[in-house]
Amino acid sequence: MGIITLMTDFGTKDGNVGVMQGVILRINPGLKIVNLSHYINPQNIREAAIVLHRHTSYFPEDTVHVVVVDPGVGTTRRPIAVQAGTQRFVGPDNGVFTLVYEQAESRGLPLKIFHTNNPEYWLSEISNVFHGRDIFSPVAAHWASGVPVEDLGVPIDDPVRFEWSRPRRAEARLIGEVVQIDHFGNVISNIHKDDLGAIKDAHVTLCDTTIEGLVSTFGERQPGDLVALFSSTNYLFAAEVNGNAAKRLNAKVGDVVEVVAR
Amino acid sequence: MGIITLMTDFGTKDGNVGVMQGVILRINPGLKIVNLSHYINPQNIREAAIVLHRHTSYFPEDTVHVVVVDPGVGTTRRPIAVQAGTQRFVGPDNGVFTLVYEQAESRGLPLKIFHTNNPEYWLSEISNVFHGRDIFSPVAAHWASGVPVEDLGVPIDDPVRFEWSRPRRAEARLIGEVVQIDHFGNVISNIHKDDLGAIKDAHVTLCDTTIEGLVSTFGERQPGDLVALFSSTNYLFAAEVNGNAAKRLNAKVGDVVEVVAR
Amino acid sequence: MGIITLMTDFGTKDGNVGVMQGVILRINPGLKIVNLSHYINPQNIREAAIVLHRHTSYFPEDTVHVVVVDPGVGTTRRPIAVQAGTQRFVGPDNGVFTLVYEQAESRGLPLKIFHTNNPEYWLSEISNVFHGRDIFSPVAAHWASGVPVEDLGVPIDDPVRFEWSRPRRAEARLIGEVVQIDHFGNVISNIHKDDLGAIKDAHVTLCDTTIEGLVSTFGERQPGDLVALFSSTNYLFAAEVNGNAAKRLNAKVGDVVEVVAR
Repeated sequence: MGIITLMTDFGTKDGNVGVMQGVILRINPGLKIVNLSHYINPQNIREAAIVLHRHTSYFPEDTVHVVVVDPGVGTTRRPIAVQAGTQRFVGPDNGVFTLVYEQAESRGLPLKIFHTNNPEYWLSEISNVFHGRDIFSPVAAHWASGVPVEDLGVPIDDPVRFEWSRPRRAEARLIGEVVQIDHFGNVISNIHKDDLGAIKDAHVTLCDTTIEGLVSTFGERQPGDLVALFSSTNYLFAAEVNGNAAKRLNAKVGDVVEVVAR
Repeated sequence: MGIITLMTDFGTKDGNVGVMQGVILRINPGLKIVNLSHYINPQNIREAAIVLHRHTSYFPEDTVHVVVVDPGVGTTRRPIAVQAGTQRFVGPDNGVFTLVYEQAESRGLPLKIFHTNNPEYWLSEISNVFHGRDIFSPVAAHWASGVPVEDLGVPIDDPVRFEWSRPRRAEARLIGEVVQIDHFGNVISNIHKDDLGAIKDAHVTLCDTTIEGLVSTFGERQPGDLVALFSSTNYLFAAEVNGNAAKRLNAKVGDVVEVVAR
Repeated sequence: MGIITLMTDFGTKDGNVGVMQGVILRINPGLKIVNLSHYINPQNIREAAIVLHRHTSYFPEDTVHVVVVDPGVGTTRRPIAVQAGTQRFVGPDNGVFTLVYEQAESRGLPLKIFHTNNPEYWLSEISNVFHGRDIFSPVAAHWASGVPVEDLGVPIDDPVRFEWSRPRRAEARLIGEVVQIDHFGNVISNIHKDDLGAIKDAHVTLCDTTIEGLVSTFGERQPGDLVALFSSTNYLFAAEVNGNAAKRLNAKVGDVVEVVAR
């Protein structure tokens, strides 16, 4: 049974996510569809890449993840399909799969990328402004239903990638940045647990505030306390216990996060 | 395999959409359910009609579209079922299916409307304030599972319709109005591509602002530029590239939109 | 065919609800998943309990309802599974199932509670901050797929419960409180129809405003009128016809609601 996930910046009020599901089910009513997120900030390719990166390894093999964050819709930017290890991806060639490529390369997983330019697997009429409905959904539905990726288009080896800021060392400090504010107001950095190496405890400074020491979970401190800890995917983040750290710190994406051993 | 879509003004936080799915799956756990929108503005029958109209033709044959935007719940307004061409609709007889009727009539599609007054296909207890759960969901589930529509109630030929404002000509101008602001802040009019006839390029004026010329997609202009173009369902709209035109123009539903040939 | 519902305070933008579905479908791609609510206010265990209570009886037998409102994640609070009558529940032992227990006890339904401490049914790696993904989803998927609840852990009889405020009588008045503001701004009390006993009509006072008499549905009054009526689950609430009563009254959870016979 094929599974498709959908991630967009469409919101859910206008029915555009629903109609993509209609297109998919018309091609194959047996497919399962999971909505991964439809509240990516408009045109925010990096945010989509980060959210996607965090979750896809938990899905069954051969799940097709459709991403439609697509400011270049209707221009010459290519529609693409990506097979990376056991997971599949369909969306615009605008960098949104950068972390997919990097992870596959760093882990030595098979990585194949196709320009899905075979209109046989698109809808018959193509709008200039909604390829999520007219190209990406039908391509994903056909792929999840057994059409070989080689039939969907032609292989490419020059996909668009964005520059991804890595934490850097400056003397005793590790310097990263805020990459996401989540629903709870947690302030999530690009500093991975592995980046700390042998450091087991640390002071974390962001937005002119230093959080002294790491905790392993929220409940170790009292409601209202600021804490620093690792996320469920092992990235360092700041939180207010039962509160909203981003509001309290006035934190935003791009703010500097500094770590020193405790 | 039967498919049901759900559109409401309930939002998603109170569980009222979830319980409708419980009712449906208790009648037939094999049905597929797609959420089309649950953020129709409260009691906004016209907005529901517009969103519905835009998407339903993309769904498989015999999909049952349930619409619960229902300020008259519990009064004498009738619950109805509509077969229009290959698509099916269930909801209150309050005008929300006006565009469904008009499209079927203009295209010569079969159109049958039933007052679904057979309580055999309702839940056994009926609340005065939640027919979405107690009447519309079970009626849809039974219909999608093979019960003939003739068993659900009695045919009617006098469904409620609302007046629908059409664009009009005034000398060289075509005058329409804003009918929706979407998630991106795009300002969508009731002017269809066909209304422009032979006109291929035009100046578009709304909210004291004139946009000179049409584009075919966002990426033809720079971020921050105001553009006018046709939507994926061929209605004229104004957008700010990678921005929010509605905020910029302070546009709202009902504002005048004027078009003149360029 | 097994059915799982999901209720969280995660919102839907970060993909955390999506990844739970990935985990469930990797265990059993044949399961059906219904999203009950993901907009419970952060850490609001009482609100989750109320929303859950209202809806679960409408689901098919053996539906597994997963609730992840979990401020104590990663501490010593236990993960639990509850069989109450024909419905099943999985989540943290923090009181969120208080109303489930009370209803089962008051109705004499079978009630069994298990500490789901058998890691054989968890993911292999457990984060300290996301048991929704690592423990509750896999436990629910296995249970919905036929694993006996006795295999998931050990029975307990001391689940956490919260104190639940009941309406009280004071001379001729019945005094309750606001327990929820819904999506429409309806102001919902903890006063059940049964609490009014023989009283068929009443004056309702809240937020320094008295609503004279009950109605049976919105449409009995004009748009803009304040009305008091019973919800689809028979709790007394205040509404503004086609408007937002909570904004108008500046009502909030915990406000006093008084009822006197008319």
